[in-house]
Amino acid sequence: MTKKIPVCVLGATGMVGQRFIQLLDNHPWFEVTALGASERSAEKTYEEAVGGRWIVSDSIPDYAREMKIVECNAENIDGKIAFGALDSGVAEPIEKEFAKAGFAVVSNSKNHRMEKDVPLLIPEVNAQHLDSVKVQKKNRDWEGFIVTNPNCTTIQFVLALAPLHQEFGINKIFLTSMQALSGAGYPGVASLNIIDNVVPFIGGEEGKVEEEPLKLFGEWNGQEFKDTEIAISAQCNRVNVKDGHLETLNIELDKKGSLEDVKNAMKKFNPLKELNLPSSPSQPIIVMDEDDRPQPRMDRDLERGMGSVVGRVRECPVLDYKFIVLGHNTVRGAAGAAVLNAELLKAKGLI
Amino acid sequence: MTKKIPVCVLGATGMVGQRFIQLLDNHPWFEVTALGASERSAEKTYEEAVGGRWIVSDSIPDYAREMKIVECNAENIDGKIAFGALDSGVAEPIEKEFAKAGFAVVSNSKNHRMEKDVPLLIPEVNAQHLDSVKVQKKNRDWEGFIVTNPNCTTIQFVLALAPLHQEFGINKIFLTSMQALSGAGYPGVASLNIIDNVVPFIGGEEGKVEEEPLKLFGEWNGQEFKDTEIAISAQCNRVNVKDGHLETLNIELDKKGSLEDVKNAMKKFNPLKELNLPSSPSQPIIVMDEDDRPQPRMDRDLERGMGSVVGRVRECPVLDYKFIVLGHNTVRGAAGAAVLNAELLKAKGLI
Amino acid sequence: MTKKIPVCVLGATGMVGQRFIQLLDNHPWFEVTALGASERSAEKTYEEAVGGRWIVSDSIPDYAREMKIVECNAENIDGKIAFGALDSGVAEPIEKEFAKAGFAVVSNSKNHRMEKDVPLLIPEVNAQHLDSVKVQKKNRDWEGFIVTNPNCTTIQFVLALAPLHQEFGINKIFLTSMQALSGAGYPGVASLNIIDNVVPFIGGEEGKVEEEPLKLFGEWNGQEFKDTEIAISAQCNRVNVKDGHLETLNIELDKKGSLEDVKNAMKKFNPLKELNLPSSPSQPIIVMDEDDRPQPRMDRDLERGMGSVVGRVRECPVLDYKFIVLGHNTVRGAAGAAVLNAELLKAKGLI
Amino acid sequence: MTKKIPVCVLGATGMVGQRFIQLLDNHPWFEVTALGASERSAEKTYEEAVGGRWIVSDSIPDYAREMKIVECNAENIDGKIAFGALDSGVAEPIEKEFAKAGFAVVSNSKNHRMEKDVPLLIPEVNAQHLDSVKVQKKNRDWEGFIVTNPNCTTIQFVLALAPLHQEFGINKIFLTSMQALSGAGYPGVASLNIIDNVVPFIGGEEGKVEEEPLKLFGEWNGQEFKDTEIAISAQCNRVNVKDGHLETLNIELDKKGSLEDVKNAMKKFNPLKELNLPSSPSQPIIVMDEDDRPQPRMDRDLERGMGSVVGRVRECPVLDYKFIVLGHNTVRGAAGAAVLNAELLKAKGLI
Repeated sequence: MTKKIPVCVLGATGMVGQRFIQLLDNHPWFEVTALGASERSAEKTYEEAVGGRWIVSDSIPDYAREMKIVECNAENIDGKIAFGALDSGVAEPIEKEFAKAGFAVVSNSKNHRMEKDVPLLIPEVNAQHLDSVKVQKKNRDWEGFIVTNPNCTTIQFVLALAPLHQEFGINKIFLTSMQALSGAGYPGVASLNIIDNVVPFIGGEEGKVEEEPLKLFGEWNGQEFKDTEIAISAQCNRVNVKDGHLETLNIELDKKGSLEDVKNAMKKFNPLKELNLPSSPSQPIIVMDEDDRPQPRMDRDLERGMGSVVGRVRECPVLDYKFIVLGHNTVRGAAGAAVLNAELLKAKGLI
Repeated sequence: MTKKIPVCVLGATGMVGQRFIQLLDNHPWFEVTALGASERSAEKTYEEAVGGRWIVSDSIPDYAREMKIVECNAENIDGKIAFGALDSGVAEPIEKEFAKAGFAVVSNSKNHRMEKDVPLLIPEVNAQHLDSVKVQKKNRDWEGFIVTNPNCTTIQFVLALAPLHQEFGINKIFLTSMQALSGAGYPGVASLNIIDNVVPFIGGEEGKVEEEPLKLFGEWNGQEFKDTEIAISAQCNRVNVKDGHLETLNIELDKKGSLEDVKNAMKKFNPLKELNLPSSPSQPIIVMDEDDRPQPRMDRDLERGMGSVVGRVRECPVLDYKFIVLGHNTVRGAAGAAVLNAELLKAKGLI
Repeated sequence: MTKKIPVCVLGATGMVGQRFIQLLDNHPWFEVTALGASERSAEKTYEEAVGGRWIVSDSIPDYAREMKIVECNAENIDGKIAFGALDSGVAEPIEKEFAKAGFAVVSNSKNHRMEKDVPLLIPEVNAQHLDSVKVQKKNRDWEGFIVTNPNCTTIQFVLALAPLHQEFGINKIFLTSMQALSGAGYPGVASLNIIDNVVPFIGGEEGKVEEEPLKLFGEWNGQEFKDTEIAISAQCNRVNVKDGHLETLNIELDKKGSLEDVKNAMKKFNPLKELNLPSSPSQPIIVMDEDDRPQPRMDRDLERGMGSVVGRVRECPVLDYKFIVLGHNTVRGAAGAAVLNAELLKAKGLI
Repeated sequence: MTKKIPVCVLGATGMVGQRFIQLLDNHPWFEVTALGASERSAEKTYEEAVGGRWIVSDSIPDYAREMKIVECNAENIDGKIAFGALDSGVAEPIEKEFAKAGFAVVSNSKNHRMEKDVPLLIPEVNAQHLDSVKVQKKNRDWEGFIVTNPNCTTIQFVLALAPLHQEFGINKIFLTSMQALSGAGYPGVASLNIIDNVVPFIGGEEGKVEEEPLKLFGEWNGQEFKDTEIAISAQCNRVNVKDGHLETLNIELDKKGSLEDVKNAMKKFNPLKELNLPSSPSQPIIVMDEDDRPQPRMDRDLERGMGSVVGRVRECPVLDYKFIVLGHNTVRGAAGAAVLNAELLKAKGLI
């Protein structure tokens, strides 16, 4: 067996950090060799640091339990990949430091997503954006580099729309989200705020949903990313669901296609199939035909949480089509997205 | 004191029937003199018939507790108004029979809503549609007549849009609803279906939302109702909330108005003010300015559940404006809507 | 009209503080003249300080909205009664300072509850414990004094047991609680911890439940409080309910009484009836006969949240009787308890 | 590979039936060869019959999807074991017919549990009760026989208490349960009854909890089962949790043991270890040491749902010890219990 690639997780104790710890358990290519967190946790074991706040499964994977937390300082840490699960309030300088020090920083934080030479990556959608890495390293005089994944709410619908955008072109999108509690981190949403309730506001979310797709579907011109033009309007809500964002969409296409064409385009979409990435869903977009599916609790774990689950595809009386999309927000929408990005980096020879 | 108008409630034991019983407690104009239900309940007291299924408050109002249930048969029942809370599977012939026998049938059922000579009524929106009553009676050779209120999901947003439609004209609407459990009646939604979940489907609901506004904003031409033209696309979802439907809307106007104009039009809208109907909200449309309001649990009881609560009014990157609307689905959306309709009938001299 | 007694609320912005603000709105005897909170909130209006965290009803009462918060410093504040809703981490010195300065401190905090000259008061249960106030003032050389109310979980079952203890004597109690989210304050319990879950632990709660009743049912011997002897075993759990603690109890009596005797003793218990205190429930113990009642959402607001609601009284195969008790934990269990205590102080001439 | 034993599931479409279908997927010893349900479902495929009511996982196992439902009639069905998941209203004659026809009927229904020659079985607790099978067959002149498992609420705490009863003797038990929604079947509990609520009543449950342990810990005297004597008092509640019953217990022992002795007795209990039954938990009783565990959502799937998870073991101020027990009510508490019973039958040569 070849030696696995050593990786670290920055911000390992939070909700997304916990998902990284879980998803990297027995990963065939990567081995977690360091766990970074804030000074407050440093020198504690992971179990001590996370304490009773382990929330993503019944117990901490054995490999991580006794690992000592270190501060997020590139001098302290060896490894090739730094998975970034830091709070956006502190992520920026730390991620830059790691990139400078030679790490491939695979970040889930929002900080560098919209920079002109940093790829915002969904492997099935815009793998070619990795061409920017070379330029980024040169621009910044870094040994390593940063790649980012989009916001959880963005990933799942952009993945679902990708085959439609390729085949038909998309020019208008209306989206209303019903987002899960885990998207707010831990402790996140107070129970008193969500019992028998919906909270119709998530700070900053609508802006991300309206902007990130323009970069994702945009182009790398050799120098910088150029946005595409799609008119998007988003309304984001928090509902009383543990995991799994559900979104309603109405879309207008440039070129008309039948309902069957649209569904088939989604079903057959699998551009990474040949790469056999360990975290790739066998089918990136699952299209359900039942009237009342997908549902968050029933369907969020399909494809181990790495798919985009589409349902209720039907004609829209105003635009062309309407449908719903479900995704597991802390797997495909966060830690799993980053792990898949790292796998793509390796497959493309960038690590 | 003048004698109160005797009224009966048809379908008194179900969820909407219970709301009628509650809202008619101490009503200044109406007195409940008969409770109608199915043969199965006949001869029981209301308390026996409802049993442990009283769900809308802590206990049955005293006046109703010992009333004997009668079958829904116009021969058995005296009174001037028949409030209809029957299941749509049985409502049609019963409501017709009561109308024939001289009752003003004020129905919450869907059965007669879209008929060409039956008003679909929201008092603040289309009171002038009552002109149809005379023709209806003549057409059908009835002593009485039927008026209906729209579906719960429709009422709250049509009320909110009415001043905008008057001032600016509306031509496109996108709506996503997050609907409360009580909208499905009792027992309704199984707890195993909704815990940690959203159900993205409510049978027949989207059709009602897309069609009823066309009649509500349409015209009575002296002979029949003529729909207006607005393109509407609805996506309806069930969420884990007891009462209060929340809806996101995107709208396009015919004539442009500023954000302030739009908000002011809603705030000042109060066409029934002079009538002083007992169940009228003092302000039919409440516009909240907080980022994260209205919320179902916090705001559904504003104006005793009779208002439409609007929030997050802002510009839409694709159409003109987007905002959210909350309404209490079994009060303003059902029993309260019907009681207000009956009050309008009395104020207009039709009872 | 006589002038109302000026009162202040210390810790006015938290969950219990909010309930004080709500319950003192239009109080016939008391008028809120000052709102105390931490330095951080000082100089803000109450509305600014509470911001979006007002959680107990749809909106802040008008009288409080524009009041300026002051620091909890007895020199800043005039008034006769200081209602204490402070966090127990800071309550002790502040409450002492206010008592020293002449206030009747009516505290909901746990800090002084078990002191030998401080009454732990439930008006219907041990009003005679107020005899200790004179001694307390002397002991401590204070102008004012402190009275406390028990923990929310304790009050409701001690109130329900009081008539049984008087008539039959109680010597053993087993209690399991299912406690509401609001008992943990705000933000309190994280939604991710309670969705689809029960948390079988509430720090410090079981000790309070096992100790406070011994003082409540104990005696003031003119010098100090002497505990009674009852063996109590408590197990406390958090469940996904907004308000209303539900408890199961098994009890053993000294002197046997029939099931009817036991229920009647509870139903007829109303020792404060003659005092006509504004916040007194008309019936302190409501005994329900339905198999499946009381239930938190259905019954917590009976008697405006000031009663103890008992149900399922039946023989216990091991001890004498078993039954359940429900109480509104932030009304009768906290702010309402303190307001009632203050009303008793006035009725007894201690203010 | 030896041929697997053919088994059928009676009542395959309900909640417990679904769990059987799931747990028997790829079972190493058993192969489902027939699915029985009511006449209404007969001739449909399992997928058609269950329709949108499949609730226990994301999708129906492939093996069952296309199987044709047959009526529960022993003449229609071949096989050696009949797993009984029928509603208790119809189970009795059907189970007898299958037993008469030669099946080992392994039933989850309550109907035959308390009969004098029918074993009520928890393999780790009273495997020796299978000695009764021979007598049962003779008494009733049956080719086959019936074995039953206890009620879900009973199994998990009797399993947890078994080592204590063996080592120390138990003579008193107080139990309060907080039971999951799935225990009521589907559709079961209405969402309007449980949102923001607890229902403190489950019909018939307390009687089962107070009686079944006496048989489980009792003796087979060669002719009939003789109950043991333990005084048990139960109070059963429904809480808003999908799966996993949580129970608080207070117990009195005959012979005193230290806290450590008690915990160790539970930890080391594993009487079936040598049998290597496929569904046996590797550790039947998991003892957690955290203050706030077990919790239903976090811990119900430990040992694939087949363990009894104990926590908060501590001294009781009134009796000897108090602690909590969690079990997965539709796995260890129902279908999984029956599958384990069947495995024991095979291991003992009774099939």
